[in-house]
Amino acid sequence: MPQKKIFLNESEMPSHWYNIVADMPNKPLPPLHPGTKQPVGPDDLSPIFPMDLILQEVSTERFIEIPDQVQDIYKIWRPTPMMRAYGLEKLLDTPAKIYYKYEGTSPSGSHKPNTAVPQAYYNMKAGVKRLTTETGAGQWGTALSFACQQFGLGCEVYMVRISYDQKPYRKFMMNTFGAEVFASPSNRTQAGRDILALDPTSTGSLGIAISEAIERAVGDEHTKYSLGSVLNHVLMHQTIIGQECLKQLEYAGDYPDIVIAPLGGGSNFAGISFPFLRQNIVNGKKTRFIAVEPASCPKLTKGVFKYDFGDTAGYTPLLPMYTLGHNFRPASIHAGGLRYHGASVLCSQLLRDGLIEANALQQLECFDAGVKFARAEGIIPAPEATHGIAQVIREAEQAKKEGVAKTILFNLCGHGFVDMQAYADYFEGKLNDHFFTNEELTANLAEIEALQPA
Amino acid sequence: MPQKKIFLNESEMPSHWYNIVADMPNKPLPPLHPGTKQPVGPDDLSPIFPMDLILQEVSTERFIEIPDQVQDIYKIWRPTPMMRAYGLEKLLDTPAKIYYKYEGTSPSGSHKPNTAVPQAYYNMKAGVKRLTTETGAGQWGTALSFACQQFGLGCEVYMVRISYDQKPYRKFMMNTFGAEVFASPSNRTQAGRDILALDPTSTGSLGIAISEAIERAVGDEHTKYSLGSVLNHVLMHQTIIGQECLKQLEYAGDYPDIVIAPLGGGSNFAGISFPFLRQNIVNGKKTRFIAVEPASCPKLTKGVFKYDFGDTAGYTPLLPMYTLGHNFRPASIHAGGLRYHGASVLCSQLLRDGLIEANALQQLECFDAGVKFARAEGIIPAPEATHGIAQVIREAEQAKKEGVAKTILFNLCGHGFVDMQAYADYFEGKLNDHFFTNEELTANLAEIEALQPA
Repeated sequence: MPQKKIFLNESEMPSHWYNIVADMPNKPLPPLHPGTKQPVGPDDLSPIFPMDLILQEVSTERFIEIPDQVQDIYKIWRPTPMMRAYGLEKLLDTPAKIYYKYEGTSPSGSHKPNTAVPQAYYNMKAGVKRLTTETGAGQWGTALSFACQQFGLGCEVYMVRISYDQKPYRKFMMNTFGAEVFASPSNRTQAGRDILALDPTSTGSLGIAISEAIERAVGDEHTKYSLGSVLNHVLMHQTIIGQECLKQLEYAGDYPDIVIAPLGGGSNFAGISFPFLRQNIVNGKKTRFIAVEPASCPKLTKGVFKYDFGDTAGYTPLLPMYTLGHNFRPASIHAGGLRYHGASVLCSQLLRDGLIEANALQQLECFDAGVKFARAEGIIPAPEATHGIAQVIREAEQAKKEGVAKTILFNLCGHGFVDMQAYADYFEGKLNDHFFTNEELTANLAEIEALQPA
Repeated sequence: MPQKKIFLNESEMPSHWYNIVADMPNKPLPPLHPGTKQPVGPDDLSPIFPMDLILQEVSTERFIEIPDQVQDIYKIWRPTPMMRAYGLEKLLDTPAKIYYKYEGTSPSGSHKPNTAVPQAYYNMKAGVKRLTTETGAGQWGTALSFACQQFGLGCEVYMVRISYDQKPYRKFMMNTFGAEVFASPSNRTQAGRDILALDPTSTGSLGIAISEAIERAVGDEHTKYSLGSVLNHVLMHQTIIGQECLKQLEYAGDYPDIVIAPLGGGSNFAGISFPFLRQNIVNGKKTRFIAVEPASCPKLTKGVFKYDFGDTAGYTPLLPMYTLGHNFRPASIHAGGLRYHGASVLCSQLLRDGLIEANALQQLECFDAGVKFARAEGIIPAPEATHGIAQVIREAEQAKKEGVAKTILFNLCGHGFVDMQAYADYFEGKLNDHFFTNEELTANLAEIEALQPA
């Protein structure tokens, strides 16, 4: 067998993050203050984020240097390997060449530490003592716990109660990395107490957890808040993935015709896509980029491009994005990381401009793809990652039908070691596909009309 | 920071396994037939193992070539990285240089696939259709499930019922890799039915599971049995670990003064140690080798060197080894992979000859070391692996006391993503150390006197 894995040396790790805003033909619309409908400025954000991250959020610089201390922590697991999926190619009997970048070797088992580490670093540098965040299934909370530990910051994680109770492994991982984890709604915040007063048995939601985390940050000058996706600076931190891939594919003597990744908020998709998308914009490459969303939360394919809140409770600025409405309730699926009502501003603008594509897949097809991949390649993928794999299989089968040796690259954003209950439910026939009616898909759109600027 | 990780290219992967028998000053004593007390020959083993593996078991050749098809599968995760533990060194403020080999990037998350893959390969080559095995917590069963899947073999795993019920994630991983997993005792074998007739609520034991797996193999000409540790060929397959480390340390410009690994049956310890031990024997190097066992099962430090059965039920040949007696019941600890009454023949002979050392550690010290390591290095270690880390910390603190820059290498044999309940129990104060009385340690030794040859 020819070479399976392509490693890079630490000396070849990218020294800068790539900021796609510099190269976008249409720049993203500004976030707006929900009261004034005017663009928010750095000062509006300073109670919850440190200035270095706010400046990255609004930056139009093309490349931003990765600080030495961040690079040192990245070296714990970066550069990550890129693999040729010989096993999957053989199983599919396809002429397509399939490559995948594997982010599961990180401390938390996914791509999330790529942004958790710089976020913790810039907060530490600003004299912040503690970060708060929310987490659903726990992947992001684990990443931030690790990052805070590295820089001596405290870490408070508000974990949606139903996950806290049903998926305890992630909670224990956060504890091991030194974080305090609270089931949300909690008694530690007014937001939590208000919910509990109404419903003492509330199982929580990501929206409530965000409210609790933000309230804790706003109420303490030494504490700030951290977000794991959606925002520009978060997506930018993830571009180290695609930049490594550019080099690794060069070593493999190849270049992708198609780049694929799942999209929840957009950080995984942006991470692998943006550096290649730059080659389309600047160097005339013709790569297709496919963001894969779950049919249970199809904002890219069934949503509208409008201003909307980033959270359920309406605490954030208004963001111009593809959305199903901030009160949309995604169908219950096992890929918790993809259950988000909107898409990041950058991915939304790129989709609107036709620079990327989107597709929505049902979870049974995704789990089937995940099992095929595990058996062929020896890595059990996280449920989120199976969405990318299912699309890869579709494209590889299409390549076979057309008899063309397309080169396909996807981001295997994390492993499924802590998600085995999902596979068990799949094997036991407990999972279903979900088909929304048009009424359900549009039910939460009317209320966001009032949020649009004049 | 200087280089943290040392990768090898796939082209640098060792092409041969190393068989330490060739270099041992005193060769291991032969296994004996329990009835005749005569050495067992290849024919005695052929009902349960294919001839290629039997020949490896008795081989005195120094190097045995790794077949191309095995190398191809190894490339899914091998060569594995070796890391410099800068974070741990800083935490301990030690002059010692600490390196670790990380085997957690494999399909099952530990070193076990290194032997599962060749075992499945040689069985496939011999026309075998199905492998059976036992598994306790499930690490070995997962590795064999993956390996069988790669070569199109069926895989039947008998999993100790208490683990099957309490630790379901590993069972789901085996299913994902295509294996059938049965709670043991089961109704599928006479051995299982006999136990269930006596005690329908039996929670099982490794000994019972071995009996079931062997019975299924003996009773079907297309089925054979596979073991994950203890035997000579199993230890030999793991030597790819230490051989890679030799090269990686050469690139780092370093050589170990001390090599450390946990010892359950011995495959992890042998894997990293034997290639370096060869340098002691052949090239006059003076490295110390420390096998770390749990105080809950201290065969190396409190056992006797005698012939004993490898399993509880007495189905195996008699093996010359350090043992606490095949009916010894280890104290309940979370490192299930270390709860074995004996040590492999090769490790036992080397300890008897003073070529390696042994130490027994309590689990609270080990979990404390595991948490320190996770926070400093970003990898949550498996409970088994924490035993090695605790010894590393002892040696690094000794080096500090002596003011010498010792070089310490250890094998981080697996991650703890699927073992988080153990950490939770540790944090919640539910774990205890265990101190055996002399009576308890010797209670099971009298009955093995009758097993010794004249």
